[in-house]
Amino acid sequence: MKKGLFITVEGMDGSGKTTQIELMSSYLKDKGYEVVLTREPGGTIIGEKIRNIILDPHNSGMCDAAEMLLYASARAQLVREVIKPSVDSGKIVICDRFADSSYVYQGFGRGIDFKAIEDANRAALDGVSPDITIFLDIRPELALGRRLAATGADRIENEKIEFHLRVYSGYKKLASLYCDRIKAVDSSRSIEDIAQDIRVLLDGLLL
Amino acid sequence: MKKGLFITVEGMDGSGKTTQIELMSSYLKDKGYEVVLTREPGGTIIGEKIRNIILDPHNSGMCDAAEMLLYASARAQLVREVIKPSVDSGKIVICDRFADSSYVYQGFGRGIDFKAIEDANRAALDGVSPDITIFLDIRPELALGRRLAATGADRIENEKIEFHLRVYSGYKKLASLYCDRIKAVDSSRSIEDIAQDIRVLLDGLLL
Repeated sequence: MKKGLFITVEGMDGSGKTTQIELMSSYLKDKGYEVVLTREPGGTIIGEKIRNIILDPHNSGMCDAAEMLLYASARAQLVREVIKPSVDSGKIVICDRFADSSYVYQGFGRGIDFKAIEDANRAALDGVSPDITIFLDIRPELALGRRLAATGADRIENEKIEFHLRVYSGYKKLASLYCDRIKAVDSSRSIEDIAQDIRVLLDGLLL
Repeated sequence: MKKGLFITVEGMDGSGKTTQIELMSSYLKDKGYEVVLTREPGGTIIGEKIRNIILDPHNSGMCDAAEMLLYASARAQLVREVIKPSVDSGKIVICDRFADSSYVYQGFGRGIDFKAIEDANRAALDGVSPDITIFLDIRPELALGRRLAATGADRIENEKIEFHLRVYSGYKKLASLYCDRIKAVDSSRSIEDIAQDIRVLLDGLLL
């Protein structure tokens, strides 16, 4: 059996990840692929419980290292329970956020040592890496405005705008460091324009 | 202000940790010390939520790496919220289990790579190490019998006896590797005999 694909989608909250992931999924299903959608943190029953702890606004006393290790734990479970078995059986897995989010949010955003994030991820990932990462590239001021209008704020989003600017510049830095894997798509445009660029990237991968 | 002390107590479930910690606490308070009791995983509100995920028998599908990272996360929170501030302000912290438990349960017990445990702990510990570790040394067959009679079994205790034998030999190995810090106390004896040995160890530390 042919091995499947592991695709991750990254970007600020409000960058349009949910919408674009749905469109990617329909596009790939229409082409006859089996698609598995998942998300970080969460995507498994255990991961969703961890997600609840991370995102609960009551847990504002959580230290940075504890948060980073919780993300890594949910990731470890997702890799072994969903991603690896699905890709091994020929499916296409699309994951809403993955390890890059730890580097940008915990590393660039909160200033946790990159070595510590790398250490925790080494234990979590079991050698798994995305075949492609779609980075929905939109300035944080614009992304946050969209998101707050839609849903209200959770603990992560209550951070100051400076935090989101550091996260955004972190994404830009990773995208230039790992330009073979991470593909930036200008997401200040219309849903259809963004989707069209992503379809071109997917077609290139499916050839 | 004089710096306090950080004491950890290790051993199999059923080795008498709870009883001996209470006796240690009374002994130290009678001598005029301020004592803070805490436990792993847990000891903070966030840590207790993590503890609930780890110990819930419904989460039997949890992978080893996810479990190890959850312990590390609870530990990171405990170090920063309780242990460091208490020791820095001159108190004596007694912690029921600490990083040694990860090495013996996840490493020796489940076969997780020691390097991965070391990596996760480096991120969690922020340089903190116990001043002394009391290892309540009792054969697992005896410890488990005591414990099951007292409380019934949780997910960790449902493991096969082979697992507990590996854990026990892990404790013995750590105790011989780190004999300056880890002090083994024969816990197959009476509560009072064990407590007396521990008082001698504490007196040596408080001189």
